[in-house]
Amino acid sequence: MKRDIKQLIDQMTIEEKASLCSGSTFWTTTGIERLGIPSIMLADGPHGLRKQDGESDHLGLNESVPATCFPTASGLASSWNRDLIEQVGSTIGKEAQTENVSVLLGPGANIKRSPLCGRNFEYFSEDPYLTGELASSHIRGVQTQGVGTSLKHFAVNNQEDRRMSVNAVVDERTLREIYLTGFEKAVKQAQPWTLMSAYNKVNGTYASENPYLLNDILREEWGHDGIVMSDWGAVSEIVPSVAAGMELEMPPSNGEAQLKIIQAVEEGTLDISLLDQAVERLLTVIFKCADHMQQDVTYDAEEHHAFARQVAQETMVLLKNENGILPLQKTGHIAVIGELAQSARYQGGGSSHINATKIDIPYEQLLLSAGDQAQLTYAQGYELSSDETNAPLLQAALETAAAADVAILFVGLPDRYESEGYDRKHLDLPNNHQELITAIAAVQPNVIVVLSNGAPVVMPWLHNAKAVLEAYLGGQATGGAIADILFGDANPSGKLAETFPRSTKHNPSALFFPGDGNQVEYREGIFVGYRYYEAKDIEPLFPFGYGLSYTQFEYSNLTVDKRKINDTDCINVSVKIKNTGSVQGKEIVQLYIHDTASRVTRPDKELKGFTKIDLKPGEEKQVTISLDKRSFAYYDVERSDWHVDSGEFEILVGASSQDIRLTTKVVVNSTSREIIPTYHRDTTFGELLANPKTMAILSQMQPQADQDQSEIQSSAVSAEMVQASMQYLPLRNLIPFSGMTEETLSQLLAALNQAVQSET
Amino acid sequence: MKRDIKQLIDQMTIEEKASLCSGSTFWTTTGIERLGIPSIMLADGPHGLRKQDGESDHLGLNESVPATCFPTASGLASSWNRDLIEQVGSTIGKEAQTENVSVLLGPGANIKRSPLCGRNFEYFSEDPYLTGELASSHIRGVQTQGVGTSLKHFAVNNQEDRRMSVNAVVDERTLREIYLTGFEKAVKQAQPWTLMSAYNKVNGTYASENPYLLNDILREEWGHDGIVMSDWGAVSEIVPSVAAGMELEMPPSNGEAQLKIIQAVEEGTLDISLLDQAVERLLTVIFKCADHMQQDVTYDAEEHHAFARQVAQETMVLLKNENGILPLQKTGHIAVIGELAQSARYQGGGSSHINATKIDIPYEQLLLSAGDQAQLTYAQGYELSSDETNAPLLQAALETAAAADVAILFVGLPDRYESEGYDRKHLDLPNNHQELITAIAAVQPNVIVVLSNGAPVVMPWLHNAKAVLEAYLGGQATGGAIADILFGDANPSGKLAETFPRSTKHNPSALFFPGDGNQVEYREGIFVGYRYYEAKDIEPLFPFGYGLSYTQFEYSNLTVDKRKINDTDCINVSVKIKNTGSVQGKEIVQLYIHDTASRVTRPDKELKGFTKIDLKPGEEKQVTISLDKRSFAYYDVERSDWHVDSGEFEILVGASSQDIRLTTKVVVNSTSREIIPTYHRDTTFGELLANPKTMAILSQMQPQADQDQSEIQSSAVSAEMVQASMQYLPLRNLIPFSGMTEETLSQLLAALNQAVQSET
Repeated sequence: MKRDIKQLIDQMTIEEKASLCSGSTFWTTTGIERLGIPSIMLADGPHGLRKQDGESDHLGLNESVPATCFPTASGLASSWNRDLIEQVGSTIGKEAQTENVSVLLGPGANIKRSPLCGRNFEYFSEDPYLTGELASSHIRGVQTQGVGTSLKHFAVNNQEDRRMSVNAVVDERTLREIYLTGFEKAVKQAQPWTLMSAYNKVNGTYASENPYLLNDILREEWGHDGIVMSDWGAVSEIVPSVAAGMELEMPPSNGEAQLKIIQAVEEGTLDISLLDQAVERLLTVIFKCADHMQQDVTYDAEEHHAFARQVAQETMVLLKNENGILPLQKTGHIAVIGELAQSARYQGGGSSHINATKIDIPYEQLLLSAGDQAQLTYAQGYELSSDETNAPLLQAALETAAAADVAILFVGLPDRYESEGYDRKHLDLPNNHQELITAIAAVQPNVIVVLSNGAPVVMPWLHNAKAVLEAYLGGQATGGAIADILFGDANPSGKLAETFPRSTKHNPSALFFPGDGNQVEYREGIFVGYRYYEAKDIEPLFPFGYGLSYTQFEYSNLTVDKRKINDTDCINVSVKIKNTGSVQGKEIVQLYIHDTASRVTRPDKELKGFTKIDLKPGEEKQVTISLDKRSFAYYDVERSDWHVDSGEFEILVGASSQDIRLTTKVVVNSTSREIIPTYHRDTTFGELLANPKTMAILSQMQPQADQDQSEIQSSAVSAEMVQASMQYLPLRNLIPFSGMTEETLSQLLAALNQAVQSET
Repeated sequence: MKRDIKQLIDQMTIEEKASLCSGSTFWTTTGIERLGIPSIMLADGPHGLRKQDGESDHLGLNESVPATCFPTASGLASSWNRDLIEQVGSTIGKEAQTENVSVLLGPGANIKRSPLCGRNFEYFSEDPYLTGELASSHIRGVQTQGVGTSLKHFAVNNQEDRRMSVNAVVDERTLREIYLTGFEKAVKQAQPWTLMSAYNKVNGTYASENPYLLNDILREEWGHDGIVMSDWGAVSEIVPSVAAGMELEMPPSNGEAQLKIIQAVEEGTLDISLLDQAVERLLTVIFKCADHMQQDVTYDAEEHHAFARQVAQETMVLLKNENGILPLQKTGHIAVIGELAQSARYQGGGSSHINATKIDIPYEQLLLSAGDQAQLTYAQGYELSSDETNAPLLQAALETAAAADVAILFVGLPDRYESEGYDRKHLDLPNNHQELITAIAAVQPNVIVVLSNGAPVVMPWLHNAKAVLEAYLGGQATGGAIADILFGDANPSGKLAETFPRSTKHNPSALFFPGDGNQVEYREGIFVGYRYYEAKDIEPLFPFGYGLSYTQFEYSNLTVDKRKINDTDCINVSVKIKNTGSVQGKEIVQLYIHDTASRVTRPDKELKGFTKIDLKPGEEKQVTISLDKRSFAYYDVERSDWHVDSGEFEILVGASSQDIRLTTKVVVNSTSREIIPTYHRDTTFGELLANPKTMAILSQMQPQADQDQSEIQSSAVSAEMVQASMQYLPLRNLIPFSGMTEETLSQLLAALNQAVQSET
């Protein structure tokens, strides 16, 4: 329905305008009946709908209506499957329509700066490209159903510790390359109707009051045309928030925000045009939401559950499979051990917590899948509510395991270890889980570990397990999906979207997380995730992009359609992948770029493309990945823009960040505007020698320099030292070292500056 | 001689005053004959005298007069012997007196931020405490001879790359704890007559123009009463330099500086009182120098050489000694391999390069020491001038080694690898040295590697050597000292003053060295050296403080004279050390402090005391180390002062940073002024709950909070999340989450602030 929103704004009183900038209840926007402005409903997500029915508590965390719980983002990301995630989005969107919810509060596109962040299970990856691609898919999916999304938490919200007050200090290049790229891709590719501003400060200013983030970058650079709402309780002061481009305070502050806005407009501290702009954006989104609401939508919960199981299969990552112990035969005596086999952990705590429509119990699903030829026995092994080993439970588990042919151990992180609201202090499994693995391995050589956790754990016990399946938090159908994979009814096809380190202290931000005082400094800069482990030569436990399959894939025929391009062109990279094993399987083909000679420090490699393909045994397919300027660029702080250093780039195609199968090289030529330097007395000879224009002027002085050089004949000085001394020498040192006068130096500087400025 | 310097200044013209602020020649200060102001002579150091005779070249690096070359600072530091280094200083001081040199330009107290820094061989350590102690000894020694020192390079000069223009960005706490502490200790403990300002910028301002460093810290905080001279060519602009507290520009700028100073005084941009202050300081030091000059001093070069050999013995570090292969018997057939055995590398390139009075050739010294019962053969093995393996040389070396009972391999870094002026790019030995080790090990099981290098190398070949002796750059008597140790005529007693990493990329600053553009950011902060490896759980190749002996030492009876002190008191820590082996030996006893619970992030341990003792076989001695406030303190940026967080500290006593033998605990109580917080709407409940005064006020609100908490009964929320949510909640969120009004919040804030302010 087309409306004249400008005209509507003209009819509104200032009180009405101000009232729109806050919610009316914990979960709804303010409606204005006399003007036909509806109130729309928002609800938590993002891996399922969390709509609170009836009265909300003060934190909005009481029980919600039943909905399908999909794997959380850690798992979804491990699928590396854009289409699958879009379908998850559309399924959740349909459930939202059913419940009259207009905006789903998600997905989260925050980068996993530290594996300790308590909310990592809600985020996709340590890599911004992967994050941006998958967030885009999720948004597209939800919004196909006429339900908006709220891309969150914008931005630089990468820890739970002091999350509502901490100041995240991050340099501009890191901000752009690591922490904003995922948001940027999602905004540009999928246009989420709303974004949610984060709790924290970014470089000294609250994200919710941050005109650089909310206006300059989000609206002006990226062209976002929806609204920004605050995370629940993220507004410190409403007036600077509205002025910065944060249109909707949630939850409402009992009319206080409205009063402050009115007062600010009356006092002239908030320009009415900024309030009108906020209202225009709000009305646009509110009406869009209202127009897209459908009546009498229903969904088939069983169908959605079946889909959740299919999704879960693709999100699990097979980390180890010694001697092909998996898949298991559906025969013999199988011991299933660990309380998590009966009490599945399939999601995390906090605002994303779904009231699932049903839950697959892993042990029950294993019984169902195994059929009659196998004998399954169960032992609890440990108490999920405690970290201490329970001796009788352990003893019973040992007996159960010893009597079997193989033992499947369900271990992982209990709810209390991992939640919105606080961070982990270490990456260990609970003590009693670790002890269980070690003890079982002493009596049973065939140990299969199934992990339920939303973020990496360290595995000092890894040598005790023949197989490890990372099930992540697999949603309500996790039990069925685990059974499918263990028995080979599904072939695992997930790969890690994050690095698993060998030690908690190895993680990139370990020295600076969660920070001191009220500040956290992102000192590791762009070296997050695999970028860090590679640059530091620290061997991870399992690298980014890694995951096993029950089949094998062969990579061949890497080709590019152009060898040399300008950065305004694209390159298509093709490679053939063949399933050389005996079962059907999916492969995630990854493309990384390595800059062979850059002006600035860059990571060894960066993910710039991927695709997932399904191959029958013996089948071969060609995949093509397109690269553009951004694939080769870094964020150039001097230019305030993305920039490619002209030169050679290596294209690396492989099965993981550490398993590169094929490489080729291309040359990319920059079309960026040239930066004209201004030379001064402290400019070094090195800078001048690197520029042909200034080099020409210096060469007239060369005889003097040559003479200087030959003058030195001493064992104290190597040729390398003479050359370096020249390279690093500021021009001003011609005075003390070569007898030049200040006047001559001034003339030289003028000539040098003229030389570089004249020809452009 | 007492002079009235103020009166002298009154007689000086402004031209004369300005002329004093620059040298008269490359190596001398300006004298003013009519006023009896002498010109004094400066000369390079610091591990020997480098006085240039006759005309100087434009870089001042041509040949110098003969002098005794001692081990460079890397080696000196490995002795951990305060008295020995003081004696080295006094020996050099005597040679300076002989040559009429008034100020020796050294020692260097820069911290080894990166093992790649080309000038590390001239610096002591990665640890500021050790650096400060040893620099103090060196200064004391030189100055006992009536020769001044110039403590350099002040400050934050930790790389050679772009050294004259780079801006070193370092946070205040790191600046104080890591980069200034060594200077601070040396200034306070030994009062060097002069300091030398560094080439680089520090946080945006040239070190030579930096009033914060040169005035606020050096003069006002530390009480230095000498002068600051510029590193040679470090002055960008003389006027801000003089204004900042840099009194002497070196080398002179042909009168340009003088003209600028006069003009600035005339134009009023430089207050004459600042110039007078500079002149007063200059005259004080110049007269002090002149008064201390002695006539007709001579020294016995042979005696100094013999002392240099004794020093070198203590500076070498035995890194590996499998099956006690060392010391060697003076019998059998010993192959000596490697050009470095004939052409010793005993010092580094650049301004510290000494024209040695004589040089011990290692192979000759081995022949002399071995006597008649042993047969020694030599093969060159490689060309020192190349990195490429020379096949015939290698072949001959293999034959020589195969025919012997044992092979001593002399390898290391050639001159071109390591010098003032540029940094290394990696930590590998030259290819041909590495290949030699591997090839020899294949034909000779008894390989002993002797390393000549000024800074760490990585050792992928370590398993091929039964013994490794790190000889560092051992000065002119290195050859004799190596022979002494290899044959057991001396027992090695050096320990590493720096960490040897397993990989170049493991080093703390690897991601941020040497920086991009014209900047280097010290992002690793206080985590330099062993502080980093421990905090990151990265195993070093050889840890800080490590070194082997031919005997063993037993640690016992760790005692403290007080268990609980105020930070204004001292604690004496005693421990008994016994030589349990069969030869005399020296042990370096190290004391580290671990803060068990600090408000800020701190290293796992920090060196706060050490002592070196000499023990006969079976002998036991008690050593006592005193600790004061500084031993427990960190630099508190909020207080702008050193501060101890009250609580328990662990005292760790051991033979290296990784070989802690005994521990005990003490409690230290802070006497720092309390910091009164100002609470605001964004203050979190966590901050208020931590303070008894505000806690009392909050407890009146508790019923409401309790109710809020009990209201939440949802599987979405763990008890941990509720607690964390409360902890991190800003006060302002009482409005949206608990229905408080802005007015009530204001009243609450007023009450809270009154509560904390009232009682002080």
